[in-house]
Amino acid sequence: MESFNFYSPTEFVFGRGRESECGELVKKYGGSKVLLHFGGASAERSGLLAKVRDSLLKAGVDFIELGGVKPNPRDSKVYEGIELCRRENVDFILSVGGGSCIDSSKAIAVGVLYDGDFWDFYAGKAKIEKALPVATVLTIAAAGSEGSASSVVTKEDGGLKRGIGSDLIRPKFSVLNPEWTCSLPAYQTACGATDIMAHVFERYFTNTPEVEITDRLCEAVLLTMLKEVPRVIEDPNCYEARANIMWAGTVAHNDIVGVGRSQDWNSHGLEHELSGLYDVAHGAGLAVIMPAWMEYVMHHNVMRFAQMACRVFGCQMDFESPENTAKEGIKKFRRFLSRIGMPINFEELGAKAEDIPLMVEKFNPGEGHGFVPIKAKDATAIYELAVKAKVE
Amino acid sequence: MESFNFYSPTEFVFGRGRESECGELVKKYGGSKVLLHFGGASAERSGLLAKVRDSLLKAGVDFIELGGVKPNPRDSKVYEGIELCRRENVDFILSVGGGSCIDSSKAIAVGVLYDGDFWDFYAGKAKIEKALPVATVLTIAAAGSEGSASSVVTKEDGGLKRGIGSDLIRPKFSVLNPEWTCSLPAYQTACGATDIMAHVFERYFTNTPEVEITDRLCEAVLLTMLKEVPRVIEDPNCYEARANIMWAGTVAHNDIVGVGRSQDWNSHGLEHELSGLYDVAHGAGLAVIMPAWMEYVMHHNVMRFAQMACRVFGCQMDFESPENTAKEGIKKFRRFLSRIGMPINFEELGAKAEDIPLMVEKFNPGEGHGFVPIKAKDATAIYELAVKAKVE
Repeated sequence: MESFNFYSPTEFVFGRGRESECGELVKKYGGSKVLLHFGGASAERSGLLAKVRDSLLKAGVDFIELGGVKPNPRDSKVYEGIELCRRENVDFILSVGGGSCIDSSKAIAVGVLYDGDFWDFYAGKAKIEKALPVATVLTIAAAGSEGSASSVVTKEDGGLKRGIGSDLIRPKFSVLNPEWTCSLPAYQTACGATDIMAHVFERYFTNTPEVEITDRLCEAVLLTMLKEVPRVIEDPNCYEARANIMWAGTVAHNDIVGVGRSQDWNSHGLEHELSGLYDVAHGAGLAVIMPAWMEYVMHHNVMRFAQMACRVFGCQMDFESPENTAKEGIKKFRRFLSRIGMPINFEELGAKAEDIPLMVEKFNPGEGHGFVPIKAKDATAIYELAVKAKVE
Repeated sequence: MESFNFYSPTEFVFGRGRESECGELVKKYGGSKVLLHFGGASAERSGLLAKVRDSLLKAGVDFIELGGVKPNPRDSKVYEGIELCRRENVDFILSVGGGSCIDSSKAIAVGVLYDGDFWDFYAGKAKIEKALPVATVLTIAAAGSEGSASSVVTKEDGGLKRGIGSDLIRPKFSVLNPEWTCSLPAYQTACGATDIMAHVFERYFTNTPEVEITDRLCEAVLLTMLKEVPRVIEDPNCYEARANIMWAGTVAHNDIVGVGRSQDWNSHGLEHELSGLYDVAHGAGLAVIMPAWMEYVMHHNVMRFAQMACRVFGCQMDFESPENTAKEGIKKFRRFLSRIGMPINFEELGAKAEDIPLMVEKFNPGEGHGFVPIKAKDATAIYELAVKAKVE
């Protein structure tokens, strides 16, 4: 096991109706002037925003609002938020939405207290030294940003998608009420589920030997997803399944299942070029990329893929040919993704094979390569596998 | 899933040599005058205490020392610590040792800032409202106190063992270096491992339905223990196995595997009367009590025990008689405990059947009953099962 620091100070407030505690929680964590940051019309329509406003008012917390965050959050909204926060002396940012909204909030939080351009942090040109406190009311189980130290934002000019990581942007608290995820359409639910599973796989495929505890914890989250996701696709209002998925999404990405081992974030990196270019849902892009990436890198460690196949996908171990087992596991993963309604190749996603050179050019291999380094020729090969992938 | 708050703000600093960072960590968390609290001669002999002192000196942190904490920590040492801290204006407590030392530190931390008798908190007569900050350098993977909100102390007068829980006593940081656990004798290693497994089982046996994510996380920790514990019993210096066990011990008890479900701490409660009376190791007492408790309560939910048998102990499911599977799982658990050198009945533990009425009288069923309530007659029956238990 490698040395690590694990620090997850976020207070998670989980269960029905817990958004009514927002106002008191903001006060507990020192907020007096809040930016309420949210996305489109759904949080308004569902009544969640009204409940959050009500809680802030009851607690006597002053707030202003900034809506309109889009999926794959943009730098333009971040600039708008930074300016607003400075003008209004905001000292606390409360995100009401999914990962995009949280990531936008985190970007504003670091930008407000920085003299230069906030994109410097995302471009790797500056180190984060301070940030406004951020908190969240989560509406989509997916990104894990409610408990993570990371944020991903897209620069509109060029469609460049880049991330940052810092303990300073870990949310002070996150309200998780699975009820608010019940109205999510099946497609978005499945996209979120795919993202959660990807967060685990990108920790699971490691070159660090003998990390049984985190292997098993990763498998625990994946097994849960295999059981619960088809249930909510079938019955969107199943609170219990929604609750299991929601907590799985947090556990998948606050790093409790990933500490002490090298990780490999190349699938996320390869996907970022897809959703950056076509503005497709991140989870849908991952459904196309991740199994293709697995097929391409499988020979680096066949036994690890056989372990996944047996422990997660319930395959029989083929002791005469572990490779058969490894392949069977990847096939089962793709079958699962297709079953929950995810695209599994370029055509289904709406991506074009002729754009591969452009994506390869923009792909940043520096984002993580703890399993297999991916150079331009490898990225090309993986995208090409994803073009023609089919359910077997 | 039940509503819950999950809050685990401790910074875990894991890996070889990390104790050298103690001094800077104390400063980071605001300590200026430290009580260095430890147990017997082993931390001195191993050289760990010297390294911790050195780190504090290098960081310019002032400290005083109080050693002599015994297993099943006593109230007398707590009173001594409280007095010393008040006299010397201590503002931070650094525990170097295992769970007993940490629990003693936590008791001192709440006692120093309280006008009355610190035992009021353990007797349930007062609510914890403030505490000195506590941090730990862990030397035994067992109690999970390095990341937990709880502390258990024994009142010498009457051998009464009682616990408290409060977020205020969660350690600010915990240094976990598996190297320092390598010198631990096999018996103590196995006692610690049993305690870790018990912490998981006491969350696993629940009446809350459909909690797949925490079920699977519990199973992940248990599966890790089944693999790694026999390895360290065989080869005490196996760093990788020690590392897996150490992180498993923390995960088992910071409640990440137990949130959102009723828990059942009666095994711990029943054991406390054993170790309170005979001063045997807590883990050894649990090895005797826990399988007996399982046998006694099994019929409350046979399928849950069958799930444990299949998913954790690799039993074949007997679909015609799930009860057979359930029983087989408990037998395998007891076989495992015996294999790693644990006592499995009263005689092997050094307990006496004639003391059962005394233990039953002292047993406090209020400590937890989320699976099956245990009254005096049930406690008697469980102790009696433990008297005559054997490996099958």
